[in-house]
Amino acid sequence: MANTTDMKSAQWLKVAQKNTPELHHKTIYPQRTITMEQDPGAFQGWGAKQQHSFNPGDVLEAGREAEFILDFGEYCVGQLSFALSVEEKYDAPLWIKISFAEVVSEIAEPFEYQGTLGRGWLQEEIMTIDYPSGIIQLPRRYAFRYVKFQICGGWYRFYLKDIACKTVTSADVKAIAPLPESFSPVLRRIDRISLDTLKNCMQTVFEDGPKRDRRLWLGDFRLQALVNYHSFKNYELCKRCLYLFAGLTDERGVIPSCLFEKPAPHRGQDFILDYTALFMPTLLEYAKASGDLDTAAELWPVAVHQLKTVLEEVDSEGLFHDSKKWWLFIDWQEGLDKQAPEQGVVIFSLKKGIELGQMLNNSDDIAWIKTQAGKMSAAAVKYLFDPVSQLFVSGETRQISWASQAWMTIAGVTPAPVMSNIATVPDAVKPAGPYLYHYVVEAMYVAGMEREAQTLISDYWGKMAKLGADTFWEIFDPENHRLSPYKCHQINSYCHAWSCTPSYFLRA
Amino acid sequence: MANTTDMKSAQWLKVAQKNTPELHHKTIYPQRTITMEQDPGAFQGWGAKQQHSFNPGDVLEAGREAEFILDFGEYCVGQLSFALSVEEKYDAPLWIKISFAEVVSEIAEPFEYQGTLGRGWLQEEIMTIDYPSGIIQLPRRYAFRYVKFQICGGWYRFYLKDIACKTVTSADVKAIAPLPESFSPVLRRIDRISLDTLKNCMQTVFEDGPKRDRRLWLGDFRLQALVNYHSFKNYELCKRCLYLFAGLTDERGVIPSCLFEKPAPHRGQDFILDYTALFMPTLLEYAKASGDLDTAAELWPVAVHQLKTVLEEVDSEGLFHDSKKWWLFIDWQEGLDKQAPEQGVVIFSLKKGIELGQMLNNSDDIAWIKTQAGKMSAAAVKYLFDPVSQLFVSGETRQISWASQAWMTIAGVTPAPVMSNIATVPDAVKPAGPYLYHYVVEAMYVAGMEREAQTLISDYWGKMAKLGADTFWEIFDPENHRLSPYKCHQINSYCHAWSCTPSYFLRA
Repeated sequence: MANTTDMKSAQWLKVAQKNTPELHHKTIYPQRTITMEQDPGAFQGWGAKQQHSFNPGDVLEAGREAEFILDFGEYCVGQLSFALSVEEKYDAPLWIKISFAEVVSEIAEPFEYQGTLGRGWLQEEIMTIDYPSGIIQLPRRYAFRYVKFQICGGWYRFYLKDIACKTVTSADVKAIAPLPESFSPVLRRIDRISLDTLKNCMQTVFEDGPKRDRRLWLGDFRLQALVNYHSFKNYELCKRCLYLFAGLTDERGVIPSCLFEKPAPHRGQDFILDYTALFMPTLLEYAKASGDLDTAAELWPVAVHQLKTVLEEVDSEGLFHDSKKWWLFIDWQEGLDKQAPEQGVVIFSLKKGIELGQMLNNSDDIAWIKTQAGKMSAAAVKYLFDPVSQLFVSGETRQISWASQAWMTIAGVTPAPVMSNIATVPDAVKPAGPYLYHYVVEAMYVAGMEREAQTLISDYWGKMAKLGADTFWEIFDPENHRLSPYKCHQINSYCHAWSCTPSYFLRA
Repeated sequence: MANTTDMKSAQWLKVAQKNTPELHHKTIYPQRTITMEQDPGAFQGWGAKQQHSFNPGDVLEAGREAEFILDFGEYCVGQLSFALSVEEKYDAPLWIKISFAEVVSEIAEPFEYQGTLGRGWLQEEIMTIDYPSGIIQLPRRYAFRYVKFQICGGWYRFYLKDIACKTVTSADVKAIAPLPESFSPVLRRIDRISLDTLKNCMQTVFEDGPKRDRRLWLGDFRLQALVNYHSFKNYELCKRCLYLFAGLTDERGVIPSCLFEKPAPHRGQDFILDYTALFMPTLLEYAKASGDLDTAAELWPVAVHQLKTVLEEVDSEGLFHDSKKWWLFIDWQEGLDKQAPEQGVVIFSLKKGIELGQMLNNSDDIAWIKTQAGKMSAAAVKYLFDPVSQLFVSGETRQISWASQAWMTIAGVTPAPVMSNIATVPDAVKPAGPYLYHYVVEAMYVAGMEREAQTLISDYWGKMAKLGADTFWEIFDPENHRLSPYKCHQINSYCHAWSCTPSYFLRA
């Protein structure tokens, strides 16, 4: 059995390999030089002030030492290159430190990193160049709008020119029609930023962030794919990602919650129960959007196995319990109780399993999935719905959260209009990040609250847009711009997959 | 005329090119890991304390983040490489900062550089490696005994092994016989350190320092060549250096005081009068050591032109005056008056011109050089010798310095035993660095003070040896270890050409 699984895994990784997408390139030049200025009204307290405009032929030059901050005018993912030359009286190696920033604070504040993730995600290089002449091509792919050059030479002048970024994406921007003018300017701007976010995350997989973590996360992938079906329509990339997940299951047959492409495809160490459950909906949505039922049929057993796996955490009455064996994500909100939201995620995923099973005529599986979905829906109402408040509650503390109402609504378990009811409970636990904000908006649409959904998009994503976001952020708390689950706001990702979904709502 | 000069220059640079020496390589492995500890008795207040011994097959490993300081056990000039690997659960780029140190303080203290030279001389690299596996070969040639690795990864272990330095030198160490056992252990140790210093400076030119400035300086070259004639005997390298200087004269026909090989041979911006004068002795010494009179004959006009050039600073009575058009070096000692020492340097160089002219039978030139040497010697006694103190004095303040007595003695202008007289003047201006210490020792030998000369070698260079020098330093003030003419002791060169001359005295 292990051998058969191994053979299948290898075969599926080959399918993934064959579906490596074509990459599109564009050359972007800096638009201006800037200085960073403290500004209490700006995002994270830092504003960019124009120093000089900058044209492609312009040269940055100085003697001895200098600092230049270039603004490329838009968010770029790609390779930076520049031409370097020095005066003939050159007498000492040229020391160059280059720092890249998605947002101003990254280079306005020093990288005195004390965070919990690897500091390698902070984009900086120090190069000492003995004979500075010719084209310098930096070694990595960077994600940035701003680049800071700190240079120290000797008693000679140095010149930087032809500074350019060759961007890379697997998104074909020609495939996109602009949003009709019937949408408000704010919503059209949010749509543009959403699509820029998705485009920059679309590489040879759907990365969660092109700066960090540059890997494929199952939960983020589902949301990116949904936007992609209504915009870039890159089905090949979705197929590749599905096969990568299927090809990298662990010894229990469980799909990893994240995976890496290089040096060779391998799985991450995280297993998030809600993500595992969502593989089934992700496969269904791909099949429906692309019409590729062959892939759906081939990966159906994998998707079913994920459902079976998460059901191990559900008791005989159909109630989910946290066995502490899994990472339960749902949202970054501290103190959020996950029981009810996970119950919702699993019911939703079971129901999507029924739908895909019907498309594939897998009547045997459909039968038990239906039974489970029914049992879990009943348990949700029996144990997690509070008739007094007319809201779902979660865990032993009977916590009331937006997460619980949203996921139960999406799962179609609605003994009451919980999405409107929750709006009247000011101390309900709120979403902390865009990932859960997405599901709250989705639940509002499901609940027929289209106006409230658009208002939330305009308020939450619109606030990022108003603060100057070029792409939407991984973390955004309007009350605390420096919030970071990693103890360092500079390492947050500011172009992040799971934040790109307004375009899905506006275009679907 | 300019065209002829240009043609000659090009031709001489070709001769230099043809005499590019063979390079010798050796692989050096780290001996131990160390920590840096403050130690008031150690050089610059820092000692290296052994942590673990380290063998070629050993692996440095850690998870998350780590700092390792490796001691290679000897001074190395060359390329560093190592093999890098990571655990399969690799999840974040590996950030590596590598700092190289000739002496402990360079990595015990941060590079918060405020000095006057380019900070590019401080050897550090930051690399961010996306897929850490395989051999990493660092881009530059480094000069070091110690290497500090600061590494930060993610939630995985990383492994460094096969750490090695492939050294490079044009010195053939097989050419060296050890000093006879009749010399004291101290002197034999000083000799060994001197030769290590020279070896590491011998590259495709005689560099002044393999860390800094990595260029050919005329004054240092003369001293290196003198040691070389009694040790490695690489005449080809000397010839190359002579032709590089001759091929890079400026529009006035003046030899630059320093020159660079790369990207193409070009002259530095410095013109030091004492160095310019010394081209003639340097050419003579080469001809005598190598027997290559063809080179001496070909470059004779260049050497003569340098004498004529420096004589423009000498008045009709034969006295040198500082016109402020030149950099007068002699020594780094602040406040040192240069008149008398420069007078001595020029007389010495004229006399060496007479000797080389005689070897080459250039009677016309010999005649006027003899006249000038006589006139300048007389002027030295008339205007710069103080009959009361029986010492040479310099400048309007009639400053008494070791520099003046030394150079007059070397020039053979000795109306009194000035080298023994100066020893009784405690407030005479002392030498500040090894370059002038060399000439003081040489003057002692010239004055027949062999015992005093050896004592000075044992005291001054021996003090460096006692403080743990692997190679001799550019700057050494026993009273102030952090003295730096560049306002940063870390940027001082700790393997420096002009400090290698004890071997000349001990072996000549």
